[in-house]
Amino acid sequence: MSMKVEFINPFLESTVNVLKTMAFVEPIPGKPYIKTGSGSTGDVSGIVGITGDAEGSLCITFSRACILSIISRMFGEEQKEINDEVKDAVGELTNVISGDSRRRLEELGHHFLGAVPSVISGQGHEVKHITKGPILSIPFSTSAGNFTVEVCFK
Amino acid sequence: MSMKVEFINPFLESTVNVLKTMAFVEPIPGKPYIKTGSGSTGDVSGIVGITGDAEGSLCITFSRACILSIISRMFGEEQKEINDEVKDAVGELTNVISGDSRRRLEELGHHFLGAVPSVISGQGHEVKHITKGPILSIPFSTSAGNFTVEVCFK
Repeated sequence: MSMKVEFINPFLESTVNVLKTMAFVEPIPGKPYIKTGSGSTGDVSGIVGITGDAEGSLCITFSRACILSIISRMFGEEQKEINDEVKDAVGELTNVISGDSRRRLEELGHHFLGAVPSVISGQGHEVKHITKGPILSIPFSTSAGNFTVEVCFK
Repeated sequence: MSMKVEFINPFLESTVNVLKTMAFVEPIPGKPYIKTGSGSTGDVSGIVGITGDAEGSLCITFSRACILSIISRMFGEEQKEINDEVKDAVGELTNVISGDSRRRLEELGHHFLGAVPSVISGQGHEVKHITKGPILSIPFSTSAGNFTVEVCFK
């Protein structure tokens, strides 16, 4: 399965919808693009593997300031460090965005399953998807900083 | 599905087998244990999501010295930095260990699918599996340093 334009919207809409619903944040999507080569870099990432009609992966990579602001709104309490509660919340957001995206893809006739998500923390880490297929990158901005959603399918 | 003792061996044997076959390294497994709480930390990690009889995730986390030594043997040429070729090789090792483990689990009557792997790089990053289920951790040592295989199922 090639990365089709029709696949961009489910992930883009899900990300906006889930962050609005769960964290009262309305991120502004930039122009999606197909990236090649190096991975996305950030301070906290949520990753979830996808199987079904095609194998793939979904990754959301945040700057430290951006995710602390998002989780502070989600918890209704200021978060000053990337602790276990923040990491678990990033995992929950990743899981819900993955599930909501897959539900939207299902409506387009595509069936996918989600694996158990992982949350990566570490200043300036890089996430590289190991696939010969294209990687779809959607940049988002918030008042507290930027994050990126990357989706790839084999 | 609970994390059964019978699941330890396929992952342990695969890891030893794949590193021996692909990189001419024979890692020495330590005592596997069920971990809770924080994730494993290292400098390079390969992660792949799993679906099928249960959702899960497989993660292999290496120290910098350990992975540079392993990939140097795999390439037959000394590797001095974590560059794109090294990251791709970590992805390939992860993919093959995931595939070989799943083949061994299949022989035990369990059916699993693997997603597209991701490779994380960044000094001292942490990988946290977001699951309420147990996380199986298998420590390995090599002459060049240590690495850890973590497997979780929901």
